[in-house]
Amino acid sequence: MGCGSALPTRSNLPSSQLLELRNKQFLIDCGEGMQIRMRQMPVRVSRMNHIFISHLHGDHCFGLIGLICTLGMLGRTADLYIHAQPDLERLLQPLINYHGDGMLYKVHFEPFNPKEHAVIYEDRSVCVSTLPLRHRVPCAGFLFEEKPRLPHILPEQISRYNIPHSSINLIKQGAGFTTEDGTYIPHEQLTTPATSPLRYAYCSDTAYNERIIPLIQGVDCLYHEATFGSEMSERARHTMHSTAAQAATIAQKAQVGQLIIGHFSARHADQGRLFEEARSIFPNTILAHDGMRHEIRHAITS
Amino acid sequence: MGCGSALPTRSNLPSSQLLELRNKQFLIDCGEGMQIRMRQMPVRVSRMNHIFISHLHGDHCFGLIGLICTLGMLGRTADLYIHAQPDLERLLQPLINYHGDGMLYKVHFEPFNPKEHAVIYEDRSVCVSTLPLRHRVPCAGFLFEEKPRLPHILPEQISRYNIPHSSINLIKQGAGFTTEDGTYIPHEQLTTPATSPLRYAYCSDTAYNERIIPLIQGVDCLYHEATFGSEMSERARHTMHSTAAQAATIAQKAQVGQLIIGHFSARHADQGRLFEEARSIFPNTILAHDGMRHEIRHAITS
Repeated sequence: MGCGSALPTRSNLPSSQLLELRNKQFLIDCGEGMQIRMRQMPVRVSRMNHIFISHLHGDHCFGLIGLICTLGMLGRTADLYIHAQPDLERLLQPLINYHGDGMLYKVHFEPFNPKEHAVIYEDRSVCVSTLPLRHRVPCAGFLFEEKPRLPHILPEQISRYNIPHSSINLIKQGAGFTTEDGTYIPHEQLTTPATSPLRYAYCSDTAYNERIIPLIQGVDCLYHEATFGSEMSERARHTMHSTAAQAATIAQKAQVGQLIIGHFSARHADQGRLFEEARSIFPNTILAHDGMRHEIRHAITS
Repeated sequence: MGCGSALPTRSNLPSSQLLELRNKQFLIDCGEGMQIRMRQMPVRVSRMNHIFISHLHGDHCFGLIGLICTLGMLGRTADLYIHAQPDLERLLQPLINYHGDGMLYKVHFEPFNPKEHAVIYEDRSVCVSTLPLRHRVPCAGFLFEEKPRLPHILPEQISRYNIPHSSINLIKQGAGFTTEDGTYIPHEQLTTPATSPLRYAYCSDTAYNERIIPLIQGVDCLYHEATFGSEMSERARHTMHSTAAQAATIAQKAQVGQLIIGHFSARHADQGRLFEEARSIFPNTILAHDGMRHEIRHAITS
């Protein structure tokens, strides 16, 4: 929803992404104007109950209070959970108390330790863990993973072998089936394998950091910040950001399926150069733009 | 810079205006995204040292922290003064302390009492006073007044009567001049009258409130909120906002030069109807739009 960095530009709001996974929505970072972009796109966030904030620089969290109040005015009743570092609660709760008068829902703060790689959210179908990043302030990326799906039962086999409804769950879990005449049909003949779980990694903001490579190995899609071009690598080092080439190198070494670069510095009016820089190292690179809708697909694995 | 109300829309950010007067800039309210609109227009705020916040609903102040941090990143060194109700300091100062690391300038809070009509800012050429409004929370509008200018001395009279540089200030203050041969030239023959001071009144948010009429009598330009159309007058009453017709009635009764209406509800996709409603009562009405630049001119007085 926004792929700029600290200073907004004519075309880029600060960081914000809405991830849809297994019919749920997860908001990742919430820079100023996120709710405005939400209206412009437009996109509804009625299935969004969890927000993940990577770090507490303003361009990743100043949109929270406006979003929270607007959801209140729109009559939201479902509790909202914000996963962030412990400091956020003492900064944001006083604003919610003051401005959130009449809100029908509750905001819960779920603190995490950005130095650890740990599971911070889990439900029946999705798991989210932290990715420790290297930035000027404590900062964590997030790895979103679908849980393995069950295999699909072939409908024609159900009728062919007269499989009762009560056996279907067992077969999905891996069992075979014995017909009335005593013939055993193995699991593999009754099912097609489940689609493999999707994995998406969000890494912003961070200096070049090879330690994340094993954690994001082979993900289907990696979003990695690419604040600067290589000609500003000294500034990238100093501000603990990455160049487009560094983002692509991480993608290449982690053998990810696809790379999306974003978090562009306002200095880079021509983001095409960042794109070329990354693509020369990791060809399957996408240049983010504000309002972009992108479908994450399974990486083609050899 | 923004003329929407609580819920932003595709075209309207929440309230924010930048007033330029006597080579100074005054920011009036600062809804979320003000700094983004600043980039989009674009407009520079290097002569902006004073911000006036009418009340502490989010759509009038959530843009402050982003703006403050951005000015810090851009290297601002001049102190910044925020005129608002006392509560703002305890809400905003913790955010500035946390997020404003490395800022080279200081933010001062200048609290005012929104129930009083009082001068809250004054310099050599401009005076700003509060206008008590009627809203769900304490709220004040602002009256910006140029101070009277001195009359212009006619250059041809300076050379004709050989007026020394040392006498010019006295003549500007109202004196005449006695020439070397003892002839007295009256003040009026040496000068043309100063242009009359401009006056601009900002009234948002407010229910219909005739008490402000004597305070804004005859201003050159009045900005008055017109959140709703008359068909929603019950909702306007309940939420303590004004209809377009009520805004125009205030303008008419106060005999202002020009009316600008804004703070439109997201329910009014067709703001043209609000415009027609106001214009039928007060013909010299302007419909605000985001990014509008408007020159305030002297009201034609009879």
